[in-house]
Amino acid sequence: MSIKKIDHIAIVVEELERALGVYRDALGMAVTDVREMPEQDVKMAFLPTGDSEIELLEPLSAESGIGRYLAKRGEGLHHICLEVDDIEATLADLKAKGAQLIDETPKQGAYGRIAFIHPKGAHGVLIELVERT
Amino acid sequence: MSIKKIDHIAIVVEELERALGVYRDALGMAVTDVREMPEQDVKMAFLPTGDSEIELLEPLSAESGIGRYLAKRGEGLHHICLEVDDIEATLADLKAKGAQLIDETPKQGAYGRIAFIHPKGAHGVLIELVERT
Repeated sequence: MSIKKIDHIAIVVEELERALGVYRDALGMAVTDVREMPEQDVKMAFLPTGDSEIELLEPLSAESGIGRYLAKRGEGLHHICLEVDDIEATLADLKAKGAQLIDETPKQGAYGRIAFIHPKGAHGVLIELVERT
Repeated sequence: MSIKKIDHIAIVVEELERALGVYRDALGMAVTDVREMPEQDVKMAFLPTGDSEIELLEPLSAESGIGRYLAKRGEGLHHICLEVDDIEATLADLKAKGAQLIDETPKQGAYGRIAFIHPKGAHGVLIELVERT
């Protein structure tokens, strides 16, 4: 099992357009896509850099997971995503080592199979794992 | 001006050794260095992956900036660092565009010249910029 790279960093914001004023306009990062993902109740902007990506997330509703997070914690870093070779082997290994998983089996994400590790089991960091397909 | 990549993600933890139990032992990430940086009042572990790095920070004292952050916010994501070509041009550009800077001029960091953007000006994210030398 191995971690290949930081796939992306996700940042929760109140309004995508205002956040792009910093990340795109002031910092000069390229935006490859902005789209609504109704199944996750978010609108996302993708800003690739190096072999990773910054993803900005705006909740589509206050009741969504991201909407509740924003209300409770405010804008800021939400999670990091690590790309792995073999997500099933990684999850089995983590489970054997006592890590606290949100997803014990992978689910289908936008660009591969994904699973989340609980922040309680990762020193306060919500970690997503992705095996890209 | 351009952002080259995510240089690193910094995570504040209570105890480096316990955090390495997750990041090194359970996730299988390599640790290239663990060292005390007394001038920043932290002990750090460096875990490179892809063209970025995860840095774990343990405060050396409760009164340090990181120590106070830990007491207030708990363990978790602390800042992201973006590598730039020309830190002076980037800071001038950010200032002209009204970004809130912690450092208006670069200071010497461990591996290049660095400056921080205030989280209030970056939608809740503490952003470090580095021009590696």
